[in-house]
Amino acid sequence: MEKLFLDSADYVGVSFWLVSIGMIAATVFFLYEGAFVKKKWRLSLLVVGLVTLVAAVHYDYMRDFWVVKEATPNIYRYIDWLITVPLQMIEFYIILVAAGAAIGSSSFLRLLVGTIAMLLFGYLGEAGLMDVTLAFVLGMVGWAVIIYEIFAGAASSAAKTAGGAVMSAFNAMRLIVLVGWAIYPLGYVLGYLAGGVDSSTLNIVYNLADFVNKILFGLVIWHLAVNDSSENA
Amino acid sequence: MEKLFLDSADYVGVSFWLVSIGMIAATVFFLYEGAFVKKKWRLSLLVVGLVTLVAAVHYDYMRDFWVVKEATPNIYRYIDWLITVPLQMIEFYIILVAAGAAIGSSSFLRLLVGTIAMLLFGYLGEAGLMDVTLAFVLGMVGWAVIIYEIFAGAASSAAKTAGGAVMSAFNAMRLIVLVGWAIYPLGYVLGYLAGGVDSSTLNIVYNLADFVNKILFGLVIWHLAVNDSSENA
Amino acid sequence: MEKLFLDSADYVGVSFWLVSIGMIAATVFFLYEGAFVKKKWRLSLLVVGLVTLVAAVHYDYMRDFWVVKEATPNIYRYIDWLITVPLQMIEFYIILVAAGAAIGSSSFLRLLVGTIAMLLFGYLGEAGLMDVTLAFVLGMVGWAVIIYEIFAGAASSAAKTAGGAVMSAFNAMRLIVLVGWAIYPLGYVLGYLAGGVDSSTLNIVYNLADFVNKILFGLVIWHLAVNDSSENA
Amino acid sequence: MEKLFLDSADYVGVSFWLVSIGMIAATVFFLYEGAFVKKKWRLSLLVVGLVTLVAAVHYDYMRDFWVVKEATPNIYRYIDWLITVPLQMIEFYIILVAAGAAIGSSSFLRLLVGTIAMLLFGYLGEAGLMDVTLAFVLGMVGWAVIIYEIFAGAASSAAKTAGGAVMSAFNAMRLIVLVGWAIYPLGYVLGYLAGGVDSSTLNIVYNLADFVNKILFGLVIWHLAVNDSSENA
Amino acid sequence: MEKLFLDSADYVGVSFWLVSIGMIAATVFFLYEGAFVKKKWRLSLLVVGLVTLVAAVHYDYMRDFWVVKEATPNIYRYIDWLITVPLQMIEFYIILVAAGAAIGSSSFLRLLVGTIAMLLFGYLGEAGLMDVTLAFVLGMVGWAVIIYEIFAGAASSAAKTAGGAVMSAFNAMRLIVLVGWAIYPLGYVLGYLAGGVDSSTLNIVYNLADFVNKILFGLVIWHLAVNDSSENA
Repeated sequence: MEKLFLDSADYVGVSFWLVSIGMIAATVFFLYEGAFVKKKWRLSLLVVGLVTLVAAVHYDYMRDFWVVKEATPNIYRYIDWLITVPLQMIEFYIILVAAGAAIGSSSFLRLLVGTIAMLLFGYLGEAGLMDVTLAFVLGMVGWAVIIYEIFAGAASSAAKTAGGAVMSAFNAMRLIVLVGWAIYPLGYVLGYLAGGVDSSTLNIVYNLADFVNKILFGLVIWHLAVNDSSENA
Repeated sequence: MEKLFLDSADYVGVSFWLVSIGMIAATVFFLYEGAFVKKKWRLSLLVVGLVTLVAAVHYDYMRDFWVVKEATPNIYRYIDWLITVPLQMIEFYIILVAAGAAIGSSSFLRLLVGTIAMLLFGYLGEAGLMDVTLAFVLGMVGWAVIIYEIFAGAASSAAKTAGGAVMSAFNAMRLIVLVGWAIYPLGYVLGYLAGGVDSSTLNIVYNLADFVNKILFGLVIWHLAVNDSSENA
Repeated sequence: MEKLFLDSADYVGVSFWLVSIGMIAATVFFLYEGAFVKKKWRLSLLVVGLVTLVAAVHYDYMRDFWVVKEATPNIYRYIDWLITVPLQMIEFYIILVAAGAAIGSSSFLRLLVGTIAMLLFGYLGEAGLMDVTLAFVLGMVGWAVIIYEIFAGAASSAAKTAGGAVMSAFNAMRLIVLVGWAIYPLGYVLGYLAGGVDSSTLNIVYNLADFVNKILFGLVIWHLAVNDSSENA
Repeated sequence: MEKLFLDSADYVGVSFWLVSIGMIAATVFFLYEGAFVKKKWRLSLLVVGLVTLVAAVHYDYMRDFWVVKEATPNIYRYIDWLITVPLQMIEFYIILVAAGAAIGSSSFLRLLVGTIAMLLFGYLGEAGLMDVTLAFVLGMVGWAVIIYEIFAGAASSAAKTAGGAVMSAFNAMRLIVLVGWAIYPLGYVLGYLAGGVDSSTLNIVYNLADFVNKILFGLVIWHLAVNDSSENA
Repeated sequence: MEKLFLDSADYVGVSFWLVSIGMIAATVFFLYEGAFVKKKWRLSLLVVGLVTLVAAVHYDYMRDFWVVKEATPNIYRYIDWLITVPLQMIEFYIILVAAGAAIGSSSFLRLLVGTIAMLLFGYLGEAGLMDVTLAFVLGMVGWAVIIYEIFAGAASSAAKTAGGAVMSAFNAMRLIVLVGWAIYPLGYVLGYLAGGVDSSTLNIVYNLADFVNKILFGLVIWHLAVNDSSENA
């Protein structure tokens, strides 16, 4: 059987499904809109479209994984993050470049290094290849580097000089990185440091977080692109 | 076997199939046309294209669910509505904004809150998580909020000032919301309050309702977009 | 096994396959060309593209149905006609409107009513829900309404005033409706009134008819659109 | 299991796979490029894109047929040729029309009749429905009609008057029809007249021939279209 | 079961998955961007898009091959290289032609001959159809021809005269061919000449190499195309 049907009482399965279909619709939305916005925003929309495309593939597998095994499909979550999180970091850089802000490649490098540290140590901790507490601390340092860069570092300064609609979008995006991304370390703490967590709750929260952190994140960029395109085009 | 064949005597299966293929064709139609209409209507057509795309995926599953289990695939209907109904509410807002009508975001908020109340209480009632009568009443309040907003509230006033083709389309769309959507609470009443309903009849009616409420709804918007595009372009 | 292989001696299966692949190629052809022709013909090509798209999905199922069951997949034929025949009737109307001919909506209504009568009574007769002879007669009345409208009614007059390439295309299209569509009632007569027909012959004839009535029908419209586009563009 | 893996020692399977993937890539290539070349060459590229699209579907089935049955998938080869060979004959005509050469429809008719004779008698011979030698001779007559038309008939004259890049492309295309297509009657002779042929060798040669006759044939047309487009656009 | 789930401890499977999804995203990226860059770079982006498209299909099979058989899917790697490596060699030529550099077709021929020698002898050696050491030496000669052509031959000279952004991109591309491609003969040496190699390590290294040699290679070309497009368009 190719199609695995959801049980109507499987609330976690429903949340997987919702995000899965949402990612497909979001991908069509971003790629479609990207073809029509002002030239300088096209790349930004293409990249958020790739983020939701990659997530759509993973959620397709995660949804069926859950239905078949009723277990947390953590391996797919990490693979997904390994591709989508760096793409989202690149978004901050692309937007500032598109806005003509003076942003050096060292800022881009700091965002990338922070991202890789965050993901790598998270994975090493979860996979039991490193002490979970040490891995957690090192991963959090990676996240802190990103937070610093976008709230107080060179990227933040560049966004301030760009001002206007770019600054508003940048604010919304960094808020998502601060608040929305906090759910992942929280899940880690609850699951590995605080004595385990109910896998149903964990997955619903992760799914909701992905919805906000990927689709809402993309919509912020789309809003900026469309507003700026209608002003000047 | 990947392909599940319909039995020629299975009228309900036929209605699932018809809507399933209709949604695919409608999606191609709306996305294709959206690429060519006047810039300000593109977003409206993209959103109705996403509504039918999401419905196409769900009907693909619902059709096979029916063939395999001969039962009402209610879980997929609710998931579908959770995504497509808010998108349709957003359409009212998008059209008024595109028409240049003075419409505040508070109107948008009322439509969204009404929608969520309507869907949430409907689901809680059907899933047995709340008293079915209470859930029904609260869900109907949500629908009433929408109806008031588009027939007598701020959205209605904005449409009147926009006038012309926009007003005609708005009229047709709100009629669909009033009459076409009435089928869903009717199904609820028959199924849960009035002693149960034959699942074949219920599904044929639901399928017909989705055809009208999604494809016809979209065609109204397409008609507006094409007429306005040919006038000015 | 997902792929069902044809037996090299299965001539009927070969005819299903040919039409199945032909519909896919025709869909790509019409949608691709539609994006480039003159604006006023785009909708006509999109609609014939949807006709072949819908047929491609049905032929995919009919082909496998034949391979698995070696029986006439009548249920899929009727579902297909229920979607594609009204779309083809709409084509007559779209072309006359695009050509700027004075054609009222009452003409459109007559075409639609004739179509629905033709299909509905055909189905009721085949499904044994009505006397086969009575159903046949009533279905033929529907077809006669269409034939009258396009050969002697308002649509015919409108085409004459449009003249030129539009009149030529209109002539070819109505010839297909007269001659090509005659195959379906013929199949009905042979199968239900004249003591049954060999299902292999019936399906090969139906497949050939669909090839002519859908792909050739579409090519006539494409030819009109391309000629007119190159003249003025 | 949906995916059928190739055995690393299955050289014939490898050749099926190579052509299968090559046809997919070629289809994307021709359809993509067709959207950007000069208007008059668009149709030529669309048609070669359909040729490789149709072949891609058939090679997908032929590859798995070979893996499952280790037999020559002749039925699919004939179905494929029935669709793609006429399309290729049409290409000669389309190119001459696009080049503005004076080419009558009788030339087109001769090419089509030759093609159908060639394929029909080939099939009747292989399927054992006609004496294999007689079928072979009649099929060769069909091919000879084509060869005459493009080397010494009206199509050849039209190409000469068109001259330049069109003449060069025409030369390359007719060489493919002369040399590349010779492989099919050769396979027929070896298989049915000369006492049978090893099916591995036959299929590798057929696969190579399809690669040249479809993809290289298309590239010749693409080269013409791109050169002409860059000169004038 | 269509979907084969990865085991969370299967690091090699994770690397297959990452490259597999990365190739899909890269294909969308290159084909999408190719539609918008300056006309002369479109072909370059289309070709790298085909490289990643072909690789995406192969990685889809290789990933499942690994999960099912836990063995090195060498047959798919060679098929992939047979299509993608010549396409990448063609890229060097396309870029120089697009840049208007004086590059003769003999340079193109040398690149192609070198490529074919490299792949053919590699395959003959691995398949045991030729002495592994002799095959290795002859394959290396092929690679040396390429390296000479792009570092010291006519292609290198042409790139120097083109200068600027073209020279930078050319430098990056040839570095990938020198360093990134060195991984394949290394794998051959370790696997066939130096007493065998752990198949897990071999595949992770091959996967990483394909990521760099295909996606990074493509991004270098994209960077050139976008920079040049924004300067002049």
